[in-house]
Amino acid sequence: MKLSLPKGMKDSLPQDMIRKQRMIDRLKGIFELYGFSPLDTPAIERLDVLSAKYAGGAEILKETFKLSDQGGRDLGLRYDLTVPFARVVGMNPSLKMPFKRYQIDKVWRDGPVGAGRYREFLQCDVDVVGVKQVPADAEILAIAKRAFDAFGLECKICVNNRKILNGILESIGIENNKEEIILAIDKLEKVSRSEIEKELSGLGMGESQVFKLFDLFSLKGINKEKIGMLKEEITSESGKEGIQELEELFSLLDAYGIKNYVFEPSLSRGLSFYTGTVFEVFLPESKIRSSVAAGGRYDRIISQFLESKKEFPCVGISFGLSRIYDAIEDRQEEARGTVTDIFIIPIGIGNEALAIAEKLRDAGVKTEVDLSGRGVSKNLDYANTQGIPFVAFIGEEELKSRKLKLKDMKTGKEQLAGLDKIDEIKKIVLG
Amino acid sequence: MKLSLPKGMKDSLPQDMIRKQRMIDRLKGIFELYGFSPLDTPAIERLDVLSAKYAGGAEILKETFKLSDQGGRDLGLRYDLTVPFARVVGMNPSLKMPFKRYQIDKVWRDGPVGAGRYREFLQCDVDVVGVKQVPADAEILAIAKRAFDAFGLECKICVNNRKILNGILESIGIENNKEEIILAIDKLEKVSRSEIEKELSGLGMGESQVFKLFDLFSLKGINKEKIGMLKEEITSESGKEGIQELEELFSLLDAYGIKNYVFEPSLSRGLSFYTGTVFEVFLPESKIRSSVAAGGRYDRIISQFLESKKEFPCVGISFGLSRIYDAIEDRQEEARGTVTDIFIIPIGIGNEALAIAEKLRDAGVKTEVDLSGRGVSKNLDYANTQGIPFVAFIGEEELKSRKLKLKDMKTGKEQLAGLDKIDEIKKIVLG
Repeated sequence: MKLSLPKGMKDSLPQDMIRKQRMIDRLKGIFELYGFSPLDTPAIERLDVLSAKYAGGAEILKETFKLSDQGGRDLGLRYDLTVPFARVVGMNPSLKMPFKRYQIDKVWRDGPVGAGRYREFLQCDVDVVGVKQVPADAEILAIAKRAFDAFGLECKICVNNRKILNGILESIGIENNKEEIILAIDKLEKVSRSEIEKELSGLGMGESQVFKLFDLFSLKGINKEKIGMLKEEITSESGKEGIQELEELFSLLDAYGIKNYVFEPSLSRGLSFYTGTVFEVFLPESKIRSSVAAGGRYDRIISQFLESKKEFPCVGISFGLSRIYDAIEDRQEEARGTVTDIFIIPIGIGNEALAIAEKLRDAGVKTEVDLSGRGVSKNLDYANTQGIPFVAFIGEEELKSRKLKLKDMKTGKEQLAGLDKIDEIKKIVLG
Repeated sequence: MKLSLPKGMKDSLPQDMIRKQRMIDRLKGIFELYGFSPLDTPAIERLDVLSAKYAGGAEILKETFKLSDQGGRDLGLRYDLTVPFARVVGMNPSLKMPFKRYQIDKVWRDGPVGAGRYREFLQCDVDVVGVKQVPADAEILAIAKRAFDAFGLECKICVNNRKILNGILESIGIENNKEEIILAIDKLEKVSRSEIEKELSGLGMGESQVFKLFDLFSLKGINKEKIGMLKEEITSESGKEGIQELEELFSLLDAYGIKNYVFEPSLSRGLSFYTGTVFEVFLPESKIRSSVAAGGRYDRIISQFLESKKEFPCVGISFGLSRIYDAIEDRQEEARGTVTDIFIIPIGIGNEALAIAEKLRDAGVKTEVDLSGRGVSKNLDYANTQGIPFVAFIGEEELKSRKLKLKDMKTGKEQLAGLDKIDEIKKIVLG
């Protein structure tokens, strides 16, 4: 049998997994700083839940891995984390609001495979349900900012409000095909302006309307100036509300000390379920051009999904983990084949190395001891190719003198440390 | 549509998930202290891999969730973490040995559902491949000991060696049906001795053989005495080798400072793939009677699975996470609905609370701020039912006096802390 992986799937060997896990742990830590708690849901959902009217939609259902259990029940692998989240909210009416949860987990889509496109991939969602006020939107952006700060990545937050976008369309006299027009506008970053103009006129927009629309989209100036100009154009109640929400959001971002946000009146985030704030986060100084996090407010989708009259206002963000991983990789952090900090090579002694290793572990130093009794050169080769930063030799002489010879594998430098001075060794190894 | 979960599956709401994650993080930390690194593999494997000759076997294949992709390829959800581990070893010949990996992840089995039996459950495996020497076996047990110490759980490690068990069978003249006899012996904890005696005689064992077998199984005394007595009985080369390995293992456990291990000559761990050390870990002081971790040495299974002539000696342990979770629960650690350490209630002020919350987060305090502007009593009710330990009030007065009123939600006690003295607040909240 020739061993292979399913098409579009891959393993994460320690070299990748160590860094991926470090990234995920950091993100979790930040989500929790804001009181978001972990939620876990099964990988498998009932197919009727996955195919509910306001779930992912027909396109995504085509890409859903379907299966059934021994009772013949129709099931599927989850294609996102939003449907399980909505289901959990619906099934647990006693949940206290606000319900602030994060979930970082795999989803599966049986779609086309290509560079960076897999059939199993990680999603990372942070959402709060139960708060319709703008401070929840601001908090979500504060989380994003803190996350990218933690990774040492300069980020730029592009913000809009769907009510403003609707207000703009109304202000230039558009009443029909609003959703289709917004979907066309959403392609602005991907296709040429002339193609979009063609599509818009196909949707019934007049030439002057298209001209005016692009005019409003390309407003120049700082955020306040753009808002000022739009205030003169937008007259609908809902549009005005959108502007008010945006102004409140910006004043909250100021209170958070966030500076790098930009009002982008054309930003739509395509999906029709957004109802207010929408945003996308970019890394202008990285080679990654696409957004690395995005989200917004979706006040109606959960109650629609649940066919409930109760309101479930929601705002959330999805982090694009593989792009963020690439952006971090970009800085060429050293790749290690193991988590080990120090590798101990016993030379011609009994089990005395174990007690020393255990003391180092007590102190939090990730310590490996040669288990196979192989020769020094083989052990050094192992430590070297695995990227283990330090090696220690312990033989009769070291036991007698109570000194340990530490070798820095990067510089080749050797130094002595007290065998019983665990803190001293720890300081050398962990820095 | 009535929302529900697939049969045999469940969500982990924050109240459970926070504790489950804490348990997992602790385990990961311990595995890494010994230089074990994380590995991730897809949930989906090719069906030919899952059904390979030396994979899980026919019984488990019946319980495998099967699916296929749009290309019509036969796939299945993994039913354990051992098959993916063996596949990874086989597909990556450049892996450096020893390859020490852990994997904590979900597996799926479409089997009977009952109390504590789910169709999706977590497995937690720690294995080292590439070391045939006994120090690897000892390290695996040292990890188990450290893990249960970390949970504050007293554990007892029962140890045997399959070569000793075989040696015992040989010593009483058994040549046929050895595997079946071992499977029967494996039931010792579950069914009565008389039932097993019946089964053994059905497998061709004479009355005196059965008597002698139980005689050797019920040897009394400390480990050294039991070993001494068996040394007189066991004459085969392989049996002697087993005793030698056990003695080496015990001397290594002594070097690790581990005391609570017991030689149990009847311990077999059923599965025919074990080749040397076998062990089971129990929690004598907990209500959990079954083993909470178990494993052993399986030197042949990976090379058989890979149909390879190369040797892949292996030793590993599986932790029974749900039982360990129950044992921890047993001590009635407080259950919280959220990770939040402190909940800030702004009273009639603007955005000033945000800056204070951000400073607390900078200091690592998990801080939630009321986002909806609701009244004090609703906020207190929320903090209370969620089990948030501290609440802070900030109004005009607090801003003027630069003092914060902190309320301990358990005792009801209120105290003042300097608004700008983040370390002071942190100390009160985190203790």
